[in-house]
Amino acid sequence: MAEPKRVTITEIAAAAGVSISTVSRVLRGSAPVAEDKRQAVLAAVKALDYRPNIFAQGLASGESRIVGVVTQNVSSPFYDAILRGVLQGLEAGPYSPLFADGYWQAPRERQALQLLLEHRVEGLIVLGGASPEEELAAIAETTPLVLVGRNAEAVPCLRFDDFRGGYLATQYLIQCGHRRIAHIAGLLSHEDAVCRREGYQRALADAELEADPDLEIEGDFTEASGLLAVGMLLGQQRTFSAIFCGNDQMAYGARLALFRHGLRVPDDVSVIGFDDQPLSAFTTPPLTTVRQPAMAIGLEAAQVLLRLLDGEDPNLKTFAAELVVRESVARLR
Amino acid sequence: MAEPKRVTITEIAAAAGVSISTVSRVLRGSAPVAEDKRQAVLAAVKALDYRPNIFAQGLASGESRIVGVVTQNVSSPFYDAILRGVLQGLEAGPYSPLFADGYWQAPRERQALQLLLEHRVEGLIVLGGASPEEELAAIAETTPLVLVGRNAEAVPCLRFDDFRGGYLATQYLIQCGHRRIAHIAGLLSHEDAVCRREGYQRALADAELEADPDLEIEGDFTEASGLLAVGMLLGQQRTFSAIFCGNDQMAYGARLALFRHGLRVPDDVSVIGFDDQPLSAFTTPPLTTVRQPAMAIGLEAAQVLLRLLDGEDPNLKTFAAELVVRESVARLR
Repeated sequence: MAEPKRVTITEIAAAAGVSISTVSRVLRGSAPVAEDKRQAVLAAVKALDYRPNIFAQGLASGESRIVGVVTQNVSSPFYDAILRGVLQGLEAGPYSPLFADGYWQAPRERQALQLLLEHRVEGLIVLGGASPEEELAAIAETTPLVLVGRNAEAVPCLRFDDFRGGYLATQYLIQCGHRRIAHIAGLLSHEDAVCRREGYQRALADAELEADPDLEIEGDFTEASGLLAVGMLLGQQRTFSAIFCGNDQMAYGARLALFRHGLRVPDDVSVIGFDDQPLSAFTTPPLTTVRQPAMAIGLEAAQVLLRLLDGEDPNLKTFAAELVVRESVARLR
Repeated sequence: MAEPKRVTITEIAAAAGVSISTVSRVLRGSAPVAEDKRQAVLAAVKALDYRPNIFAQGLASGESRIVGVVTQNVSSPFYDAILRGVLQGLEAGPYSPLFADGYWQAPRERQALQLLLEHRVEGLIVLGGASPEEELAAIAETTPLVLVGRNAEAVPCLRFDDFRGGYLATQYLIQCGHRRIAHIAGLLSHEDAVCRREGYQRALADAELEADPDLEIEGDFTEASGLLAVGMLLGQQRTFSAIFCGNDQMAYGARLALFRHGLRVPDDVSVIGFDDQPLSAFTTPPLTTVRQPAMAIGLEAAQVLLRLLDGEDPNLKTFAAELVVRESVARLR
């Protein structure tokens, strides 16, 4: 690939023996062109190694062929898997993704959205984040927008049933005979963490088990917070036979804290996670968890946006929680 | 944030009581403007909620203010961490990142690069990938380009000393008394996997230990391949007391295979990885590994590109391999 040649449409028209407007129609696909003329133009484009100036095209047509993706501090394995799905889903359409990061902070996210809008993105996918819903709704009035990883009323979003996931995880532990079940929640400023905890509390209540506030600790979704939380529970000599962790990363940390205290999983303490990170099938023992199909969610987000951009019904769906039983939960006798 | 108003520069000039060219100079920062006039323009911009059309500005000035980032199948934890560094590093400059994925395949990567160039990116960061070096070099002649995760002669790249990393890991195992050391290599079509294996072989040779080809297995950098490789070694009843894995993900899989066979780490078999994934500090036991400072590498890649775009010396550096000793290697008596 050498230096881009500054070939003009006029030169292509001359080489193809057609009018400039015919070249333009072929390149834009904006109107039907006789097949022989179309072939002549494409041959000339190839021979001259013409590279269309999308930038100029975008200005003329008002189309940038770019969609914006707002990420939040790239490198959470869960959101990275969603991102991978988004990228794969966008492959099906004519749009390229432009990224900006909101760092889970509303002011930074506002800047990120502003920047993407200044680049004339034609649509937006927002992964998680902290923007007030009304701000997103205002943007969505003029720019198709899909929200992922957060629930909203006023903006198209892909819902995941966090409450049901928390319920399923806790119910499974109860079915296995556990009565004293600790919960390490994610950051409770995040709606998903709150819903998962509510699922945990409801499952206990439905089984007529009393929730013990001493067994609930707020983590921050990181491995280190899971390690700390279990260290605290053990240091305070709390009695429990199982731990429901608000995500897999905290479950990894919880697992290490138990290991440090010479406690075996699941023989001494059972552990259950949330997300089903790819790695969770490879921990020792492999982790029982609630699956969030992150990549499928990202793929669907891209497809919803492409539908919105085509003026179709977004056809939003809710992803169901699914328990993945592996080997980190013991059945008590 | 309501529908973008179609405010024109003329209206801003009228509101600010200055000439249109003054407004233009302020908005572009292209020439000095008296402070009182600058303030008047900025006040008018704010009052009228003017959103500059970067698209049009880009066309006029030839500057898109976009840099392209070529990823490879987003969601390898190692490359995702580099990507995070790149995004953070770009925050320091005026450029927004546009992404395209090459999927580790030269033809897809060529498309990705073409797409980014069509969007008039001003610079490029290529993470890994399979493009022939001469193609990248041809692009780099006209568009500043930084290559990360691959070594190249003809293109600015950030080097990591994979050979030295493989050497350090193996040397450490030898120092701990191991003599029969297995190696699970990464995909040997990737230069980094080859260099790490060469480091392993050289360390054995320097210690006058014979390399046993039966103890070398090629994996593909995934957990599953580590699991399979160790399953094969054990199934073939090979004798070894330690395994050097070409990355941490394969070490996680190796760890699980040993667990499945009732072998303890490090009591029965020692394991050492490569990368120092964030998770490796939280495995049971925490993994001894070779650190690649992925995020710092990404940050530096962005800074090198910003220097190239400013016409400065790229000031390329090589990142040194560093052994991180945790608890997965036993000292033999």
